[in-house]
Amino acid sequence: MNKICAVVASRANYGRIKYLLKAIEQNKNLELQLVVGASILLHRFGNAIDIIREDGFKPNKEIHYIVEGETLLTQAKSTGLGVIELASAFNELKPDYVITVADRFETMSTAIASTYQNIPLIHLQGGEVTGNIDNRVRHSITQLADYHFVASNKAQEKLKCMDINPNRIFNYGCPSMDVLDKNSLALDEERLNKYKGVGGQINWKQKYILMVQHPVTTSYGDGYDQIIESLHALKSLDEYQKIILWPNPDAGSDDVSKGIRQFREKYKPDKFYFYKNFSPEDYAIILNNASCCIGNSSSFIREGSFLGVPAVIVGDRQCGRETGNNIEVSDYNRNEITEKINKQLKNGKYEKEFIFGDGNAGKNIALEINNICNG
Amino acid sequence: MNKICAVVASRANYGRIKYLLKAIEQNKNLELQLVVGASILLHRFGNAIDIIREDGFKPNKEIHYIVEGETLLTQAKSTGLGVIELASAFNELKPDYVITVADRFETMSTAIASTYQNIPLIHLQGGEVTGNIDNRVRHSITQLADYHFVASNKAQEKLKCMDINPNRIFNYGCPSMDVLDKNSLALDEERLNKYKGVGGQINWKQKYILMVQHPVTTSYGDGYDQIIESLHALKSLDEYQKIILWPNPDAGSDDVSKGIRQFREKYKPDKFYFYKNFSPEDYAIILNNASCCIGNSSSFIREGSFLGVPAVIVGDRQCGRETGNNIEVSDYNRNEITEKINKQLKNGKYEKEFIFGDGNAGKNIALEINNICNG
Amino acid sequence: MNKICAVVASRANYGRIKYLLKAIEQNKNLELQLVVGASILLHRFGNAIDIIREDGFKPNKEIHYIVEGETLLTQAKSTGLGVIELASAFNELKPDYVITVADRFETMSTAIASTYQNIPLIHLQGGEVTGNIDNRVRHSITQLADYHFVASNKAQEKLKCMDINPNRIFNYGCPSMDVLDKNSLALDEERLNKYKGVGGQINWKQKYILMVQHPVTTSYGDGYDQIIESLHALKSLDEYQKIILWPNPDAGSDDVSKGIRQFREKYKPDKFYFYKNFSPEDYAIILNNASCCIGNSSSFIREGSFLGVPAVIVGDRQCGRETGNNIEVSDYNRNEITEKINKQLKNGKYEKEFIFGDGNAGKNIALEINNICNG
Amino acid sequence: MNKICAVVASRANYGRIKYLLKAIEQNKNLELQLVVGASILLHRFGNAIDIIREDGFKPNKEIHYIVEGETLLTQAKSTGLGVIELASAFNELKPDYVITVADRFETMSTAIASTYQNIPLIHLQGGEVTGNIDNRVRHSITQLADYHFVASNKAQEKLKCMDINPNRIFNYGCPSMDVLDKNSLALDEERLNKYKGVGGQINWKQKYILMVQHPVTTSYGDGYDQIIESLHALKSLDEYQKIILWPNPDAGSDDVSKGIRQFREKYKPDKFYFYKNFSPEDYAIILNNASCCIGNSSSFIREGSFLGVPAVIVGDRQCGRETGNNIEVSDYNRNEITEKINKQLKNGKYEKEFIFGDGNAGKNIALEINNICNG
Repeated sequence: MNKICAVVASRANYGRIKYLLKAIEQNKNLELQLVVGASILLHRFGNAIDIIREDGFKPNKEIHYIVEGETLLTQAKSTGLGVIELASAFNELKPDYVITVADRFETMSTAIASTYQNIPLIHLQGGEVTGNIDNRVRHSITQLADYHFVASNKAQEKLKCMDINPNRIFNYGCPSMDVLDKNSLALDEERLNKYKGVGGQINWKQKYILMVQHPVTTSYGDGYDQIIESLHALKSLDEYQKIILWPNPDAGSDDVSKGIRQFREKYKPDKFYFYKNFSPEDYAIILNNASCCIGNSSSFIREGSFLGVPAVIVGDRQCGRETGNNIEVSDYNRNEITEKINKQLKNGKYEKEFIFGDGNAGKNIALEINNICNG
Repeated sequence: MNKICAVVASRANYGRIKYLLKAIEQNKNLELQLVVGASILLHRFGNAIDIIREDGFKPNKEIHYIVEGETLLTQAKSTGLGVIELASAFNELKPDYVITVADRFETMSTAIASTYQNIPLIHLQGGEVTGNIDNRVRHSITQLADYHFVASNKAQEKLKCMDINPNRIFNYGCPSMDVLDKNSLALDEERLNKYKGVGGQINWKQKYILMVQHPVTTSYGDGYDQIIESLHALKSLDEYQKIILWPNPDAGSDDVSKGIRQFREKYKPDKFYFYKNFSPEDYAIILNNASCCIGNSSSFIREGSFLGVPAVIVGDRQCGRETGNNIEVSDYNRNEITEKINKQLKNGKYEKEFIFGDGNAGKNIALEINNICNG
Repeated sequence: MNKICAVVASRANYGRIKYLLKAIEQNKNLELQLVVGASILLHRFGNAIDIIREDGFKPNKEIHYIVEGETLLTQAKSTGLGVIELASAFNELKPDYVITVADRFETMSTAIASTYQNIPLIHLQGGEVTGNIDNRVRHSITQLADYHFVASNKAQEKLKCMDINPNRIFNYGCPSMDVLDKNSLALDEERLNKYKGVGGQINWKQKYILMVQHPVTTSYGDGYDQIIESLHALKSLDEYQKIILWPNPDAGSDDVSKGIRQFREKYKPDKFYFYKNFSPEDYAIILNNASCCIGNSSSFIREGSFLGVPAVIVGDRQCGRETGNNIEVSDYNRNEITEKINKQLKNGKYEKEFIFGDGNAGKNIALEINNICNG
Repeated sequence: MNKICAVVASRANYGRIKYLLKAIEQNKNLELQLVVGASILLHRFGNAIDIIREDGFKPNKEIHYIVEGETLLTQAKSTGLGVIELASAFNELKPDYVITVADRFETMSTAIASTYQNIPLIHLQGGEVTGNIDNRVRHSITQLADYHFVASNKAQEKLKCMDINPNRIFNYGCPSMDVLDKNSLALDEERLNKYKGVGGQINWKQKYILMVQHPVTTSYGDGYDQIIESLHALKSLDEYQKIILWPNPDAGSDDVSKGIRQFREKYKPDKFYFYKNFSPEDYAIILNNASCCIGNSSSFIREGSFLGVPAVIVGDRQCGRETGNNIEVSDYNRNEITEKINKQLKNGKYEKEFIFGDGNAGKNIALEINNICNG
């Protein structure tokens, strides 16, 4: 039985890979080893580990390696500490393959720790193109990886352009689409009421806008000003409720968080609800039923195009990324953001597009990994 | 004045980059910051730091980050510890650009520590192709780097194939050729006698064969058997003196060293002389005057082709690398090695080839870096 | 000139040592090297570094080494990372003596990093006795230290009991008393209004109670319940304003913070004001003018006895510590706490006691260090 | 069943604790968890892990945490990295008690990693007094420990002087005596011939002197000169064979090793045999049958007094330590050393003394630990 070790190190990572983990678990020839770490374990970021356990997974290792600070310096140091700790973990678990997803610093730690121990590396979501440091990290990991499971045709083309062996590139779409296909995405008020955010109880029956805006590491230090513009734009849309999700623990997230907190203290704005974390399924429901999304989360582009949810991408974090028709882009400017949101609200839902897969990625990738194991 | 921070972390690194460091130091618009670390500082690997100081350099930082063990695991951990320490160093030195060379794990640490702090990264010797884990690490660093100074036309082509922006690729050859061009390479007995190796005093006036054979990380665990074959081949060539240079501190070097030590104890072989380290200039002289070279050092391919020194490359560490006519390749087999060495001894010196530059790389790269700073 | 390197790694540390740092700086024979690190640098803990800079200090090094998580595990790891980073710092700064204060994990990191490099260690506040893991860490550091500056007679006796050389023990009191002696502690509304906490603007002219309650590492996991009792006690005292200071980043502070946040969300209590940080002088003013203090801060015992401020110590974190008459102790029980606070409010200010020094510690310790340097 | 986790991190550590490990393993109420790390795992120090495995132990964790360099700086860093890694190990193994031995930097790492996680710490060999940094580290660990198993009456007295709770101090002697009591210590030529050192095959039937000399961390930098004196003394005693054991990986061991290597190269001395490692039983045999011992190994004092083996302690590493009649002390001076060795050779074997126990320590300590668990 081949041991497949997946490293999951952030809320977003988990949402992206969950249905692949399930598929590996159900495959009789594969043994899933699950290593969780970094912000997954942190209270400040919503203890995503609890959701993973509720989903029935039993992590083999839980590893703390975030050096606190959320500066560029501490992000680099976290990467280094991650390598040290993950190297030990792999040395003990002795996996036959390691799986890593996307482009965060935890992904880089995983890639280095496995590559230097000659453990073949399976990389998901290579070949995508964005603005931000993520772009280089993603391509850099691609060069360390042995097998590449891309999420779109364009990504596949990009990898070929980078001189990657085409026989090692597979395009089954992104497993984060699977959750959209396999669950009812109707609004279930009772179910969602379990989330206790700050700002009181949202009324799920009424219209809301969803905001997810992360710091942009290449413009480190501007996060405060950037988020303030978005918040003012939302404040002006007073007939909508607003759901605000706290940012990832990247360099600069302190600035973003500070902006949110100070805005809240100063304006005590009405109908703003702040959350740390949702399960992938619940996030899918919330996304699907949003009147509009705003921020720079890649979920607006990926899951958003599948669902046809109108979204306004602010700034250049996702610049260059392949998008569907559901996306408008705006500068960090409260007036332009407001205008674009209004345009999207008027438009309403878009047609579904299957740029990033049709909802069967997890199952197909697991089968292909099984093929790889058998040679 | 622009601060250019070069990280030098192994004996080989230093030889490769020394003439570039000199050229940066002499450029009035550039300020050299020198960070040395890893095996450079270790007695076991010959205290290369002493040679650097004798050359007039004053390191800004000396950083220890090798986790002892020379296994795949400790190599990964050293990479992680390197990131942690180098990140702090860059944070303090605040360089405008960071320079890193080639493809070792220390190079990867440098690349990550600078990239995550948004410091533009200058990479030397990208685009080369070899067998070994070095190959992926090299390409991975290429994807993190901002500017690429390649050493050959083929390397330049390879980077273009990898979808690297051609305007950011420069081909001035490898600065390790500069030492060959700028110094007399005649044998200077008095000068070389300062090196006190193990095995007594070599007679520099008599013929010798030079062996440099490193462990191969992708076939970790085989180093002992591999070196034994080479040593037996050398033993059979009894009219030649043999110079043996100890291996780099890579995963597996313990095996190689053990092979050398046990061979020495068991056979007490005649005319074998063991050294840890030479200055780049002295190494160039020794290489130039060798009757033949054997092992897997990339210097046989690079400096060797420039000088026309006959060499036998053993095994697949350099597999795929662009070579000149001076190279024969052999399997790990004492008979084949002996045969190929004899063939090379019979041939004698080859014509010079300038595949990796004409000896002006240091100066030209420094000028180009100056352009980049202004541009 | 002798280089004296002080490591300051938490808000509390800085308050304790500030007047010693000033005195060293003013001594012509001593050169102050200041290393700041850990929570001093973190936004979440109020960026105490800004206050240090405003006081005119220029840190030689700023070092991040907190591994995020605030569990027992991450506290241990932070200690380890601190040793690694501080060892490099000392190696570069080459101090003649290192100063460390009290008993936190950052203190332990400092002690190990200096001891293993044969740098004589000066320890402040050894010999005190408390409940908590701090107690063993404090005594353990005592055994590593070369010179001991205690804060009270009892502490001096305790060190002698521990078989410490009496000639190396000095009792000049605690430099945290100096701030009380050298500044007006009258309430200065204008000055204090610069602090923008959460909960709106306190009215400094009206009566208030000060709460500082840290997690207790030996009863890790109980912090949430413990703080809730204190908060309910405070809530019942509705004619007083309440100043709540966030806890230190110890194992368990997440629980304490969570308790405070949830209490605030749930009850939206009136007249509660939340702050992250005050300068030592401003903290002294706030302490001096409090109607009563509650929690487990050692400042209630030290500065509190000097000022005669009534205080209720909750739980066993300070158990065993030498106290003045101004202290009442309560269990984690809202009724008992309320009762004890009321008793203290009725009593009002106590007579001053000089258990921990008379306000000249900084100057005297600096002079003694100078003596030590001279031999 | 109570889980007792022992951390063994050097050749000497293992010899000291082996019979305790056996006794724990045989106790039905105790479950042994064995963590090995640091130099135990290193080829350079003789792969002591192989001996541990041959003895039937199966380590639960193998942890690399030596930062290479053997300077004071890297020794400090190794301590820090050890804390990080051991903290993770304990977090995973969840022992009820942790056992640590003596006073090395690995011991300190163990003590901190367990103390900060509230795991009760059992310390062996506290209370002894020596010159060297080891002395403070030993006392410092004592203050972190919960239970103290001392090796001699004097050590017990010392702990009481340090204000340690007498009920927590137990004196059953040192388990390193057990090996002396439970095995035949007659010279078994066949058995010892399995060790292949450098220098050819020793003739075990003929007389030999045993040298074990470690670097002294408080006089870091002098190790080269110190060892040279000892080696010259030995060289002058030409009718004896000499067994030289390589030093521990402490700060300064590079200097000592260099001295040994250069001496060997320069003088090619006759009858010198160099070894990295012996099993505890074989070491006991070799020690017992030595005509004389020289160096600064604590085994000369402990096991030596039990066996009555004459020994010359060179320098001040063991200064202050309680010794038997079998010890002479010499300065680092070849003439004095030679003279003292000759005096000892003339004296021959001494009477046995049971200062450090009667050979039943392992069994008795295990029983007491069982009591503690139940109590």
